[in-house]
Amino acid sequence: MLTRIDHVGIACRSLETAIERYEGVFGLTVASRETNEDQGVREAMLVVSDAPHASYVQLLEPLAMDTPVGRFLERRGEGVHHVGYAVADVTEALETIGGRGVRLVDARPRHGSMGASIAFLHPGDLGGVLTELVQPAAPA
Amino acid sequence: MLTRIDHVGIACRSLETAIERYEGVFGLTVASRETNEDQGVREAMLVVSDAPHASYVQLLEPLAMDTPVGRFLERRGEGVHHVGYAVADVTEALETIGGRGVRLVDARPRHGSMGASIAFLHPGDLGGVLTELVQPAAPA
Repeated sequence: MLTRIDHVGIACRSLETAIERYEGVFGLTVASRETNEDQGVREAMLVVSDAPHASYVQLLEPLAMDTPVGRFLERRGEGVHHVGYAVADVTEALETIGGRGVRLVDARPRHGSMGASIAFLHPGDLGGVLTELVQPAAPA
Repeated sequence: MLTRIDHVGIACRSLETAIERYEGVFGLTVASRETNEDQGVREAMLVVSDAPHASYVQLLEPLAMDTPVGRFLERRGEGVHHVGYAVADVTEALETIGGRGVRLVDARPRHGSMGASIAFLHPGDLGGVLTELVQPAAPA
């Protein structure tokens, strides 16, 4: 069902500082920058490995403290916020996983980074790990 | 320098419960189980994607509460403990990254899972993310 680790989502107070760090220390490059009002974040995807085995560091800065990532920062400070796994079909994966008793944060897929369809699974049923399923956009 | 996300390391109270969860929910399979006295953990590597683009979920149960993973569990509860990135040459990567001002938890590589050479970087210089470099063992 899971085909690879698509990304690690990292909460940061300053997106620009975090980007500079991953560029400067590891030589990563930014593939995309987006603001996702729905999720309350400004974010950047930095390439660790290229398609078709793509993986990314996703840096997340909250648009306000009263957002999921803002509350995460207040509670735990900067650090890993979630893990995203690639799947071939996010709707099908949600149905299977929901049927196995895991609570779904998103019962239906929503819009994620770089045109992907995504959905989050509840960390309370997954050992404290906020887990994201990612169906990447089809190549143009 | 980084060639892929090698694994996410997840701290858990019970390795068996966590393995059952990742097997049962996501259909992952265990590639290896080890006890690493040096790091104070019992652990399992579960395959997300196969070599040569291998990625894993690494589940970590502390051997005692007075260990790094034990203290992590006491402080933060179960969840993502660290992120491991593959590198071609861990000694060279450490030298480069140390030269860029990041404190090294391990100045020299040590033994990691499945015969890899690994080293940890200080989370205090990496936005709160305990980061591991992994030079996988050469294929047999």
